[in-house]
Amino acid sequence: MTEFSTAGDAPAGKSVSQTADASGPAGDAGGATGPGRAERPARVAIMRMAEAGDAVMGRLIARYGPVGAMEQARRGVLDPGFARDEKDRAEASRRHLDLGRHAAAWAARYTDPSDDLAQGMRRGARLVVPGDVEWPTQLDDLGDARPFGLWVDGRANLRFSCLRSVSVVGARAATAYGTTVAAEFAMSLGGRGWTVISGGAYGIDGAAHRGALASGTPTVVVLACGTDVCYPSAHEDLFRAVRRQGVVISEWPPGAHPTRLRFLIRNRVIAALSRGTVVVQAAARSGALNTATHAWGLNRQLMAVPGPITTEVSTGCHVLIRQGKAVCVTSAEEIIELVGSIGDDLAPEQRGPVRPRDGLNDETRRVLEAIPARGATGPAAIAVAAGVDIGTALACLGALAAAGFVENVDRGWRLRPAARQ
Amino acid sequence: MTEFSTAGDAPAGKSVSQTADASGPAGDAGGATGPGRAERPARVAIMRMAEAGDAVMGRLIARYGPVGAMEQARRGVLDPGFARDEKDRAEASRRHLDLGRHAAAWAARYTDPSDDLAQGMRRGARLVVPGDVEWPTQLDDLGDARPFGLWVDGRANLRFSCLRSVSVVGARAATAYGTTVAAEFAMSLGGRGWTVISGGAYGIDGAAHRGALASGTPTVVVLACGTDVCYPSAHEDLFRAVRRQGVVISEWPPGAHPTRLRFLIRNRVIAALSRGTVVVQAAARSGALNTATHAWGLNRQLMAVPGPITTEVSTGCHVLIRQGKAVCVTSAEEIIELVGSIGDDLAPEQRGPVRPRDGLNDETRRVLEAIPARGATGPAAIAVAAGVDIGTALACLGALAAAGFVENVDRGWRLRPAARQ
Repeated sequence: MTEFSTAGDAPAGKSVSQTADASGPAGDAGGATGPGRAERPARVAIMRMAEAGDAVMGRLIARYGPVGAMEQARRGVLDPGFARDEKDRAEASRRHLDLGRHAAAWAARYTDPSDDLAQGMRRGARLVVPGDVEWPTQLDDLGDARPFGLWVDGRANLRFSCLRSVSVVGARAATAYGTTVAAEFAMSLGGRGWTVISGGAYGIDGAAHRGALASGTPTVVVLACGTDVCYPSAHEDLFRAVRRQGVVISEWPPGAHPTRLRFLIRNRVIAALSRGTVVVQAAARSGALNTATHAWGLNRQLMAVPGPITTEVSTGCHVLIRQGKAVCVTSAEEIIELVGSIGDDLAPEQRGPVRPRDGLNDETRRVLEAIPARGATGPAAIAVAAGVDIGTALACLGALAAAGFVENVDRGWRLRPAARQ
Repeated sequence: MTEFSTAGDAPAGKSVSQTADASGPAGDAGGATGPGRAERPARVAIMRMAEAGDAVMGRLIARYGPVGAMEQARRGVLDPGFARDEKDRAEASRRHLDLGRHAAAWAARYTDPSDDLAQGMRRGARLVVPGDVEWPTQLDDLGDARPFGLWVDGRANLRFSCLRSVSVVGARAATAYGTTVAAEFAMSLGGRGWTVISGGAYGIDGAAHRGALASGTPTVVVLACGTDVCYPSAHEDLFRAVRRQGVVISEWPPGAHPTRLRFLIRNRVIAALSRGTVVVQAAARSGALNTATHAWGLNRQLMAVPGPITTEVSTGCHVLIRQGKAVCVTSAEEIIELVGSIGDDLAPEQRGPVRPRDGLNDETRRVLEAIPARGATGPAAIAVAAGVDIGTALACLGALAAAGFVENVDRGWRLRPAARQ
């Protein structure tokens, strides 16, 4: 929390999730007004008991709600109807499933969620769960493998940041060519109001975040360990900078350490969060190709950067292009043309300096007009100037960000260059 | 002719075209037995009068035969029926055509073909025209723009060499990466019995020919000037080496100099001769993209090599890949998979060391068995050993080369490694 205390306004994301938490109904089912009070600790307990991406747990939650699922998992005893359906499902797909052992493992890992909640808060992270205003609903495309919740650490609002976002992924063992391209793409994407999403590894990941940071726009680091675990440790300064300007997120509880499997599980979130994934450099068996496979499976736009055929680290990119899975991209403009909204980002000649404000409703236009022509302002000040409550202001700002009028930066919200009329 | 006099056997191509010339009928129409006697000087005169690729002349020849077309062009007076059809055609395509002036220009450029014939022979070149055994019939795909004839200088047989061939083209201002890739591709293609076709320019063209020469297989240089004109002059040694192992060919008469337009006209022949064109490096407006457009228009396989997006000289390749016109290729194996015969070249596991000889007819099998297991032999010696005449031997050798059993090299014909049983 130390970093937040220096900010003039409370960070947007923080306010949103706290508001949702406080205003939600006491019931277990998440709704339009946010998940219930009991749901949050239940999800925290589940994040400790079940491995991220556990589809059996995903279905247990879908059927009994987070609190019901947590209770069954904690006891290690599942509802017979659910158990029967899971066995049928496993048999139909000829998959081995020892459900009793699976549930027993959940039960064995139960810890009081208040420990994780306290530790997460102490380390400066906030919990974002399905139903929260800050929840990125595109993760729902992951179906049964949707994250149970996310620990989010940083000033940016996760949901707003990801509305216009591109995942930039690639090899740890990138060449200077690869890291240069990743950084330049990220900087150009940022300059055009697009958020970069990537892992926290050396090579392409780090270069992409550094490029995004240089452009002054949010960047999202998706970790395969707790948000309080710095892996790799040499990226401590990088992650600190990301927390100031973007967010560091994780499906794993505070203190969790990364494993080889967790990197692969994590990759589905990188693919699902954005509108498209760009593979900058990847050898034939690179983990980045795993992210590419997720993006492809989720019907997200898949793109790859060509490189010299004489370096192995571009082989994976060329295979994706050759197979017709990835589109060959050579600039940020080409990426935006592929992931942008039709008519808005399609062709350079259609991107004029003036954006039509006519399509906005009264409230949203008032919020837009409350933002000064230069500099950034906090959401509370914007709400006062626009004469709306903070929740309405944040909702309008989110819509305006998605439409490309405003962006969420270090000290609040500001107009994007194109919206300054 | 100096180079041929040192060879033990008469060069295959030379023998073939001389045979065809001597055995052909005296009439004007080319047939299965080769073009008529009067046709060759007529085509030589036309090659002097009309610019290569002149489709009006192409249609005049198609209608009146080479001798009839030559006579009309020489007088500068065209048959009224033909003139009317050409005017209708021009009007239908809203194209300006001053046919009188066009024909007058032909007439003005007439010279006695015996001069060119004598000069071509003196410089060591042979004339190959449609109907000759050495004529590459795939050039017929060029329709009205088919070359009127070709001057061919070198030991390889043009038709046989081009049966399994790939055009490797690209920028003059290639980088070290581009020339390395071009040379390596050409060497691998040559090692697998594929002929390389390219222009004679600096950069990719020269590197491709050098790679092919290093593999010991024929390479075809398609010039935009007379075969006796060395352009660029620094390629004198390269062209000499090509004449020893492959062929240097041109649509233009001896002594003709290259122009910017001629390079573009020439490119259609590079595209039409081979089964596919690989663009190794090409800037956005490179002439290599002109060749690519021809290959695309002729339904030949179009391929492009990716490269660093940070060098402009790969931009054209990336555009072709991005547009879906060219397939991204990164190795000679991938090229052969795209241009090779189904089942023969498709997948690495299908390429075994033993080739079935069962499909060959008696004569062809006798010719194949007459070739020693090691080293190269001249066609005359092969004919004697197989008990067939030289014409039959050459026809069988061509078929065997096309099927990948044998290859035409410096000192005659030899078994390809895979055919050595």
